[in-house]
Amino acid sequence: MSDKPAWLRPHGRPWTNDTERVVFENPWMRVTDHAATAPTGQPASYGVVRLKNYAIAVLPLHADGAVTLVGQNRFPLGDYSWEIPEGGGPIAADPLESARRELAEETGLVAAEWREVLRLQLSNSVTDERAIGYLALGLSEAAHGHHADDTEEIAIARVPFREALDAALAGHLQDALTVAMLLRGYHMAREGSLPDALARGMLG
Amino acid sequence: MSDKPAWLRPHGRPWTNDTERVVFENPWMRVTDHAATAPTGQPASYGVVRLKNYAIAVLPLHADGAVTLVGQNRFPLGDYSWEIPEGGGPIAADPLESARRELAEETGLVAAEWREVLRLQLSNSVTDERAIGYLALGLSEAAHGHHADDTEEIAIARVPFREALDAALAGHLQDALTVAMLLRGYHMAREGSLPDALARGMLG
Repeated sequence: MSDKPAWLRPHGRPWTNDTERVVFENPWMRVTDHAATAPTGQPASYGVVRLKNYAIAVLPLHADGAVTLVGQNRFPLGDYSWEIPEGGGPIAADPLESARRELAEETGLVAAEWREVLRLQLSNSVTDERAIGYLALGLSEAAHGHHADDTEEIAIARVPFREALDAALAGHLQDALTVAMLLRGYHMAREGSLPDALARGMLG
Repeated sequence: MSDKPAWLRPHGRPWTNDTERVVFENPWMRVTDHAATAPTGQPASYGVVRLKNYAIAVLPLHADGAVTLVGQNRFPLGDYSWEIPEGGGPIAADPLESARRELAEETGLVAAEWREVLRLQLSNSVTDERAIGYLALGLSEAAHGHHADDTEEIAIARVPFREALDAALAGHLQDALTVAMLLRGYHMAREGSLPDALARGMLG
């Protein structure tokens, strides 16, 4: 993209953080409670969920236009969720290395080509969680296959891209990173940002 | 969409919630800490952030293909964020009513036509936050204009859809709901799900 449009400029004063205390901490997050001052000058109390990892997401696109999805039981909503491969990447680590690791661990795939295609703040009024989305192309099976950690039981499905996208838009896949990355893949296929044969395979 | 594809079926056993205690609560969320059992049978401790509202997002599309965005300082990441109109809608309330209210309060706009176009789980390994995205069409100015609450200072910009989408893909807009809804708007314009003149205006 070219120059940053003028309308993107910030307005007004930022929030100020007046006092802060940690109210909960585990290996993945810290919850902090703040006395703050709003941009309007109004005092406000604010609770923030601070994540210790980036959310790393990988859209693995096979040459025929199929995508590899992973399925797992999720605890917070108590449901079964089909998603693109995702996981936490330490904020101090190279996020591309985290992406390679997640893809290999969850699917047993390695990719010859990686492209960073999305940066997201997942819920920026409540958490500071940041996500990075990668496209993985030139896929092949790793020598040693996939291995989940001891709380994960991961199912794998290789499905036509269009079928995955339609399932997301019908509400069968709801993980935000998955839906955003499928829509980003559609956009790239339509805009000529992917090899022609791949784009044709994806768009069906 | 037609029938639900067979690959969407769940596998394995769900997590079980063995004990639970509330470790933090404010008007918007409750944080709970659990002893749980993973699908693998492994005991695990799990912290969950439980939101008291749906995240409601509105993509307001003007007949010429422009979109109205709102800008505000956000506390959790300490940055200035341009987004589509969004806000919390009580889980017990009609989410479409929450969408109408958010659009009017943040932009002063009313819409003649509403379409629900996206359901998301914003960060389903850590929170139970659910989001609903609406398209708002047939826009006009409300009689009384917009009015923010006493901690909000909202700026408004009406920009060409393509410019907003490009800004998101360049990383200048990162709010996940905003980026997902802009990509959903692009998808609908490309797939013939919007009036022709609107789609042409959006795609520039």
